[in-house]
Amino acid sequence: MAKQITSQQKDYAQWYQDVVRESKLADHSPVRGCMVIRPNGYALWENMQQSLDQMFKDTGHSNAYFPLFIPKSYLSKEAEHVEGFAKECAVVTHSRLINTEDGKVDVDPESELEEQLIVRPTSETIIWDTYRNWIQSYRDLPLLLNQWANVVRWEMRTRLFLRTMEFLWQEGHTAHATKEEAIEETERMLGVYQTFAEEYMAMPVIPGTKTEAERFAGAIETYCIEALMQDNRALQAGTSHFLGQNFAKAFDVRFQDKDGEEKYVWASSWGVSTRLIGGLIMTHSDDDGLVLPPKLAPVQAVIVPIWKNDDEKTQVLEYAQGIQSALKEAGVRCRLDDRDQYKPGWKFSQHEVEGVPLRLAVGPRDVQNGNVEIARRHDRTKDIVPTDEIAGKVQDELKNIQHELYQAAKERMEKNTFHAETYDEFKEIINQKGGFVYAHWDGTTETELKIKEDTKATIRCLPFDYGKGVSGKCMVTGEPSIGKVIFARAY
Amino acid sequence: MAKQITSQQKDYAQWYQDVVRESKLADHSPVRGCMVIRPNGYALWENMQQSLDQMFKDTGHSNAYFPLFIPKSYLSKEAEHVEGFAKECAVVTHSRLINTEDGKVDVDPESELEEQLIVRPTSETIIWDTYRNWIQSYRDLPLLLNQWANVVRWEMRTRLFLRTMEFLWQEGHTAHATKEEAIEETERMLGVYQTFAEEYMAMPVIPGTKTEAERFAGAIETYCIEALMQDNRALQAGTSHFLGQNFAKAFDVRFQDKDGEEKYVWASSWGVSTRLIGGLIMTHSDDDGLVLPPKLAPVQAVIVPIWKNDDEKTQVLEYAQGIQSALKEAGVRCRLDDRDQYKPGWKFSQHEVEGVPLRLAVGPRDVQNGNVEIARRHDRTKDIVPTDEIAGKVQDELKNIQHELYQAAKERMEKNTFHAETYDEFKEIINQKGGFVYAHWDGTTETELKIKEDTKATIRCLPFDYGKGVSGKCMVTGEPSIGKVIFARAY
Repeated sequence: MAKQITSQQKDYAQWYQDVVRESKLADHSPVRGCMVIRPNGYALWENMQQSLDQMFKDTGHSNAYFPLFIPKSYLSKEAEHVEGFAKECAVVTHSRLINTEDGKVDVDPESELEEQLIVRPTSETIIWDTYRNWIQSYRDLPLLLNQWANVVRWEMRTRLFLRTMEFLWQEGHTAHATKEEAIEETERMLGVYQTFAEEYMAMPVIPGTKTEAERFAGAIETYCIEALMQDNRALQAGTSHFLGQNFAKAFDVRFQDKDGEEKYVWASSWGVSTRLIGGLIMTHSDDDGLVLPPKLAPVQAVIVPIWKNDDEKTQVLEYAQGIQSALKEAGVRCRLDDRDQYKPGWKFSQHEVEGVPLRLAVGPRDVQNGNVEIARRHDRTKDIVPTDEIAGKVQDELKNIQHELYQAAKERMEKNTFHAETYDEFKEIINQKGGFVYAHWDGTTETELKIKEDTKATIRCLPFDYGKGVSGKCMVTGEPSIGKVIFARAY
Repeated sequence: MAKQITSQQKDYAQWYQDVVRESKLADHSPVRGCMVIRPNGYALWENMQQSLDQMFKDTGHSNAYFPLFIPKSYLSKEAEHVEGFAKECAVVTHSRLINTEDGKVDVDPESELEEQLIVRPTSETIIWDTYRNWIQSYRDLPLLLNQWANVVRWEMRTRLFLRTMEFLWQEGHTAHATKEEAIEETERMLGVYQTFAEEYMAMPVIPGTKTEAERFAGAIETYCIEALMQDNRALQAGTSHFLGQNFAKAFDVRFQDKDGEEKYVWASSWGVSTRLIGGLIMTHSDDDGLVLPPKLAPVQAVIVPIWKNDDEKTQVLEYAQGIQSALKEAGVRCRLDDRDQYKPGWKFSQHEVEGVPLRLAVGPRDVQNGNVEIARRHDRTKDIVPTDEIAGKVQDELKNIQHELYQAAKERMEKNTFHAETYDEFKEIINQKGGFVYAHWDGTTETELKIKEDTKATIRCLPFDYGKGVSGKCMVTGEPSIGKVIFARAY
């Protein structure tokens, strides 16, 4: 019965792999670095998509879809952009296979393309090339689009969800008449991501901006939210970029403003990906498997009926169906697991490892007493509840669990957030404890890279609420600090 | 004000392109054969997805996601499959670009892949390779999965939505313990497609099976639904394939049955794509642009307020907002077009070309009289309706329009369905009228190909309700007929 899950204590990386496998979220695929997202994982992604998509639409965005392929020459139109992405591209060079004599197939050399195509690693180039045709006047602005798509970045070391060659994501691409509007949009969407992370994923994050070295290739400023995983490593959970006029200039996208002048358009782009599923796992789960926040759990409550003979079965199933109806009516995503071929114990264990927030067990005695046993996945507590109160109880519990998961994660993050005054102190914290470490930094890439080389810690962000305006001296060089910034070893 | 739309009469193909452009459904992209799906087109696709997805879930399916890339060697594991797809593949051969001296980028020859990857044209091979790991016992069956994804087939002659190099689709892939179950599933999903086409798209279809020549590469039997466009050419609108044990054998997917015996798994696959949007356009639209069935229209009713001065504006807008609230509450997808920079006439024309089923116009006099003018897109009729009855009226109208569109399309299809007794008669009908032509056929591929060569007409399907059991002689060879089958020139 026991699932094959290594303890977090023993080997966190192995624990992660085990949880992903045992909870049936994803599999490795025969194509190195690509993953198969299994129904449990995809249902989670669908719930994330649905919530985010509504938030995008509520902030005025529409969805669209742009081509998978980008002509090679497009990438080099924005100098920094190509620098950032050229080294990890899937390149399409041919359009046909031919049969070989041994009954296999080979690339038909005669089908070589005139211009090779890149499988999109991100879509700024193809989208801004299109925007040139759509934007003529200030009346066409702002243009607020998003796309849900797959992208490919050739990665050598991959981990399911966290870093894969192909991943699913959304990418917003907006065009504005003024710099101020574009920055406002960039910040608004970071806010949307923070709200989603905290209120849906129950994952506290620190918002801020990236250093030049960690910035998106082609951006003027990259905003991010950073989360802290259970092993005290940081995870970049979402980014929103102020692109200035870089792509407008590269693709010649101008508009006639109200004042009659022709100007380049201002831009933002922003994205989150299936990587969030990795963050979700490493925020809440435990040695028994997945723990899911109710707002995103594909099944919020599972009912497991227990019987010994056919008489009991009829009775218990009817009772369980009544509970199911009551829960569905109350808007709870509820499943009655009435499968014959598995025993209740097996089901308990399976739903536990799959992270269903609430398990309701119903046996013949419960039918007699008008009760149901309710068990919480996250803290293993149980209650006996009168069945006629079950719908309200479950709704309350789901709200409580959502809140408790967030609180627990927040406390954990706070407990593992440190301040280092000297570089020795900094190194000791990073090596002994990990976590988020605030420290003074002189603002140079040189110092940043030295710290990375010494400790593998990177600057996660210049936090909005603390980074600037705190006077002090850089812990490494002693030069005047630009403020206390957040360091961590990161995924 | 008049939109740039060629009349259907003058040039149907040009009319189609004009409607797609003017209603802002899609654009050509710089990558030949790929399309950009614009917000109007994507919103339509989202509504289609949502309805279909619910129908898939109601019939027990879950969504999952499989890799974009397929190792080249996989394609050749199923002999007919590779025959069908090898000639139109995007092949990834390299994983990196390098800078050239002129500031551009080129493919890095050192990044050549050991095994080339194919961008999926369909996913049977990669999915059945995965199913081998998931299926051991009859307890693991049936396995009922679907994926929403992009696929690529290298096409030389492309038309927006109808035939594009990259398109969006869903592909269902199911695994069963018995042949009967797999056939039942294949037929069930064809039924789902027929229901969707007729009840949501208001597009009547004829269900049937394909001939061997038109069958999916790797299938034992291909079921299809065929629709008739306004220019009397047929459109294959959805296919469902009974795959037998072909892929299970190619990828060695066996299970231990209840009787203890090890058996190969039986399979089905089925799909519909963004091509349906092309079918939708060519079923209902007219010389003024798009006509959309209410069930799928992104905006079902648009309210256009009319005013001459600020006083009127305040009054009219408040009134219009009241109508909007009432409609939203009634579950109508409703938009209040209160944009200042456009005049009412421009808005009328724009919403007309974009196919909004109902337009509600409100001016100062309507406010006084407690009325609203309601105009139907599909038949250009108008009514004056008391505002306090508007929600119920709009709901009724949307139902009526949905029904009328279906009825009109059905009558058109029936009017253009013919029976040919002799080959001369057949050729005359195909050349003069087009449409669906029932005729006796001897069942040989040879005759089928001769007819195709002579007339460009293909066998669209062996219809369930007519094809078999009707005795007669083949119109071409005079040999005994297998039944009356349906011919047409097709997209």
